[in-house]
Amino acid sequence: MANHTITFTLADSATTAVQVPTGTLVAEAARQAGVEIGQPCGGQGRCGRCIVQVTEGAVRRRSTLRLANEDLEQGFALACQTVIEGDVAAFIPPQEKIERRLTTDRVAAEVSVPPTYDYSYTQTVRRVHLNLKPPSTDDQTDDWGRLETSLRTQLGINAASISLGLMQKMSTIVREGKWRVTAVLAVDRGEQEPGPARIVMLQPGHVDEYSPLWGIAVDIGTTTVTLWLVDLVSGQVRAQVAEYNGQIARGEDVISRIVFTGKAGGGDEMRALVLGTINGLLDTACKRVKASPQEVVKATIAGNSTMIHLLLGIPAGNIRLSPFVTVVNQPPLLTGAEAGLAIAPDAIVDCLPGVASYVGADITAGVLSSGLNTAEEVTLFLDVGTNGETVLGNRDWLVTCACSAGPAFEGAGVIHGMRATAGAIEEVWINSGTCEPVIRVIGGGKPKGICGSGLISLLAEMLLTGILDKGGNIPKDAASERVREGEHGPEYVVAWGAETETGQDIVISHVDVDNLMRAKAAIYAGFTLLAEQVDFKLEDVHKILIGGSFGKYINVEKAVQIGLLPDVPWERFEFLGNTSVRGAYHALLDWRERENIKQIADRMTYIELSADNTFYDAFMSAMFLPHTDLSRFPSVSAALSKSSSS
Amino acid sequence: MANHTITFTLADSATTAVQVPTGTLVAEAARQAGVEIGQPCGGQGRCGRCIVQVTEGAVRRRSTLRLANEDLEQGFALACQTVIEGDVAAFIPPQEKIERRLTTDRVAAEVSVPPTYDYSYTQTVRRVHLNLKPPSTDDQTDDWGRLETSLRTQLGINAASISLGLMQKMSTIVREGKWRVTAVLAVDRGEQEPGPARIVMLQPGHVDEYSPLWGIAVDIGTTTVTLWLVDLVSGQVRAQVAEYNGQIARGEDVISRIVFTGKAGGGDEMRALVLGTINGLLDTACKRVKASPQEVVKATIAGNSTMIHLLLGIPAGNIRLSPFVTVVNQPPLLTGAEAGLAIAPDAIVDCLPGVASYVGADITAGVLSSGLNTAEEVTLFLDVGTNGETVLGNRDWLVTCACSAGPAFEGAGVIHGMRATAGAIEEVWINSGTCEPVIRVIGGGKPKGICGSGLISLLAEMLLTGILDKGGNIPKDAASERVREGEHGPEYVVAWGAETETGQDIVISHVDVDNLMRAKAAIYAGFTLLAEQVDFKLEDVHKILIGGSFGKYINVEKAVQIGLLPDVPWERFEFLGNTSVRGAYHALLDWRERENIKQIADRMTYIELSADNTFYDAFMSAMFLPHTDLSRFPSVSAALSKSSSS
Repeated sequence: MANHTITFTLADSATTAVQVPTGTLVAEAARQAGVEIGQPCGGQGRCGRCIVQVTEGAVRRRSTLRLANEDLEQGFALACQTVIEGDVAAFIPPQEKIERRLTTDRVAAEVSVPPTYDYSYTQTVRRVHLNLKPPSTDDQTDDWGRLETSLRTQLGINAASISLGLMQKMSTIVREGKWRVTAVLAVDRGEQEPGPARIVMLQPGHVDEYSPLWGIAVDIGTTTVTLWLVDLVSGQVRAQVAEYNGQIARGEDVISRIVFTGKAGGGDEMRALVLGTINGLLDTACKRVKASPQEVVKATIAGNSTMIHLLLGIPAGNIRLSPFVTVVNQPPLLTGAEAGLAIAPDAIVDCLPGVASYVGADITAGVLSSGLNTAEEVTLFLDVGTNGETVLGNRDWLVTCACSAGPAFEGAGVIHGMRATAGAIEEVWINSGTCEPVIRVIGGGKPKGICGSGLISLLAEMLLTGILDKGGNIPKDAASERVREGEHGPEYVVAWGAETETGQDIVISHVDVDNLMRAKAAIYAGFTLLAEQVDFKLEDVHKILIGGSFGKYINVEKAVQIGLLPDVPWERFEFLGNTSVRGAYHALLDWRERENIKQIADRMTYIELSADNTFYDAFMSAMFLPHTDLSRFPSVSAALSKSSSS
Repeated sequence: MANHTITFTLADSATTAVQVPTGTLVAEAARQAGVEIGQPCGGQGRCGRCIVQVTEGAVRRRSTLRLANEDLEQGFALACQTVIEGDVAAFIPPQEKIERRLTTDRVAAEVSVPPTYDYSYTQTVRRVHLNLKPPSTDDQTDDWGRLETSLRTQLGINAASISLGLMQKMSTIVREGKWRVTAVLAVDRGEQEPGPARIVMLQPGHVDEYSPLWGIAVDIGTTTVTLWLVDLVSGQVRAQVAEYNGQIARGEDVISRIVFTGKAGGGDEMRALVLGTINGLLDTACKRVKASPQEVVKATIAGNSTMIHLLLGIPAGNIRLSPFVTVVNQPPLLTGAEAGLAIAPDAIVDCLPGVASYVGADITAGVLSSGLNTAEEVTLFLDVGTNGETVLGNRDWLVTCACSAGPAFEGAGVIHGMRATAGAIEEVWINSGTCEPVIRVIGGGKPKGICGSGLISLLAEMLLTGILDKGGNIPKDAASERVREGEHGPEYVVAWGAETETGQDIVISHVDVDNLMRAKAAIYAGFTLLAEQVDFKLEDVHKILIGGSFGKYINVEKAVQIGLLPDVPWERFEFLGNTSVRGAYHALLDWRERENIKQIADRMTYIELSADNTFYDAFMSAMFLPHTDLSRFPSVSAALSKSSSS
């Protein structure tokens, strides 16, 4: 057999060459050349981490899995699936470039200021400089009268209002500023003429007009609360923080939370818990930019209907009782003080409009930020959270349903689960020969636990490598010390204590797997039933938009493999990250977007799935990896038979 | 000398006759006939309590003091000043009829519902019955949406708002009422079409539409707080209560109160004190009608500017510092909860508009209720309280000034002073021979103390009987055991301990007299200077309207005698009682009256008296009984020379 020279060029431009016979895998050639190429899946062409770029010479690709056509045209190839058929020059890209290239990896959309944002037109708060006439014995007008006069003569505002709280502080502020003050006004931007203005904040002197004016966009998830701190002048997100909802201690899902509020003082405690979480996040975010929470003048809040009720201390009891009605879907505007937020007491607090008991403002905000409401083609929007909500539709129609998925994909309800922050395992590859895992950790340090995307990845890898069977069981006969009997039954050790931040083994147990399967089964049952209800074939869907608190990446291929997402071509998927907080951010910046969310709420049709047994049947069918009906998952079926035959 | 028969007919129609010679006083004849006629002044023709009606026969009146022409035509005569010149028949009227007849007694105007009151047009709160559609699985609209729909379809109200607090209670209320509820709405009555409505109260079921809907009118005086509980459906005042302002413990006048708020926590304490007083009065008033304070849906509040600032926790410091400006003269509408009142949390709280630091809402409300703002002729309005405010003008112009009078005329700052409630001595007559007093006590029981009208009466009687000299000193050589040296210097015993409720002597001391003289001097200086400022001669004034917390009666003659009121014909005086709370009552009932108060505030010109030494000079000149310049008081001068010659 002819020998060929293969020359590897590394990212730092160093080169090295090796002689190999025809038919040698590029991966093997690299090993012989001493070039390190990651192969977490053990060379099965599954993980796509061994990508190289063939710049010259003849190769043959056994598999092109996970590579897009344009990548193939540029010579990209999987080292473990590509054989050498002549002299070859190959470039080894750095790892982070590989990750961007993989079509099954979906990276959460970056947050950039919407191009339509115009602080002086789309923003409903306005910072103005006022020069008040100082009083004298000839002009004994009251302080408030001076402020009103200044607003009228300088800005044409004829109707101004102020809270008692600010009235109490006003005389000190105007004198401290020597009758020069900065006011933040809440205004109606829809008006042609300056409409009525409410004074939200008063500061002595003239504050730099380009200095930040703070707002927050908040998503109250049943499991995770997310807060973005935004400079309303530039529109930029200046800090993003998230934390588990403090209410988790009183129930993992909305139903148990509602039940808890039925106890004496339960509603007050629930309210205090979530306020504690939000105010804590606010504090963290403000510290990062050296601002005070009291400087925040506007907040938009999304969340499911139960979360909004609990936040506002409104009884949620009827949400869980037939006929399942909320007290309010479109709460009135509140102030910071009324809402109990540690922001400016007179700040605008806007709880975004929801649709029904189980389709709240998180979904209307998500629909807005996903762009589903303006899509031409039929699009599916999935919010993968404690409540799995689905919206199907386009710019002409929108239907929605909800199911209780549980908090597993947010890392809660799983022993070593965690939020998608530094230290979370966000992707896992398992060598099918050795059962040894390779992990990717957010931030790159030692792992602390596993976040949602890591759990999806882990489950899929375990399934493909036989550590998990289709029924979700961990076989006891696995020939690896990583598979063992743990406290909660059979478990798989993802990381040994010696490698972890905590010093403890990070494992996934049978119980964790069961929770994850329930979550994915509920979500899958939800969107498939919704499509059936409107006689739409899921395979015809133009796009599938995925929202959720997974972190930055989600591996769509693996999510399909476990049966969480439908088996449609990967390029149709878009991973949007937390669509709810993103929608709240759009509403925070632009009153027209706020209007759009209201329109979404008004025109969305809610379909109740719990009305008969259909949901239960669909759920039970989905309690399998990927599904009892394998014909729904042709690509997974192929991969499974390939992996079991290898 | 010829004997004549004089026949007396008593109120119970019994008759008795006696023979007396020509020239006998009717009073003497009555004594001989065994008919009791009150002569508290000792037969000097001063008190007017010995009135009889001569129905037949010849008499000659030595004096007609205190009798109007029409009374003379009807035969009324003073028994102690009328001699018998033939056979006479005389009727002895019952005492209460006499009191009504005396032109110098001014009885506080009765409170009657204004004839223009129309609950369905002039009232800004409205009670409505709503029938909500119950929810079903086919109609999962939220509770608030059902309420909005009901308001729209049943009442044509398209924009309704609700507080978070009511939103929290709503779901329970609508279900308790089986989807039939009673709502109290705050509405804009000026609108042609139903304008926006704010929900003030929600109750389960349909409450009887004629059952009371409660409102309160409040006057916060520096010394006395007055509260009227009003049924807004009928417009009737159902309870009137008053109490000393709890802030008195922290200073008697507005200046010392303001100084107190400068201390740490001082403002909060002041606010709590007055709220304690108001909420206590509210409780008392509500108990009388078996209502709950929480049922009160609307409050209008009058008071001087300092009182309103302290009520609202707004710093009042600049009120006492040049250039003497308030923070706010026309406070925004508040809710019960914001104001800190123990009424319905969402009740309308309307602090009425004031004019300046020393002319507050008590005066604008007083001007309204006195009718000064619509008077054709130039009229003087005096508010005799801790702050003596004066308004001069008519429907075309209004000028006003203020002076610090102190709380003496409200019974505070006087050892045995008290408010005009049961047990207060409200009138005193002193026998010039014996120095023995006759007193009239509110409620008729044993005396507890002396109220404002009693103090005026007492001072005048003491002056006329020589127990007090023109300088306000109690001579040490008086030949009565009632004049003695007390703890605070010379004093006069008005009632011995054996006759009083408390068992202690009720006295008036030299210090008390001094306080009363300062108060009357300040008030007199105020209105005379105001008239001078606008070049108006006080003797040309058409009417003098007197407001203040004196109780039901004020003896105008005596008030003139001590130099509190100007020496003009008695028929020009009108005693209106508490004009401030009365104005608040009108504003409570009628939005047009509320508008009128605002117009009064807007058009009233405030004249600052403290600008130069003029006020001090005028004040010092008035620190005499009645005044250093006796030519200003011709009638008093005559009475004094008569009494000293008798």
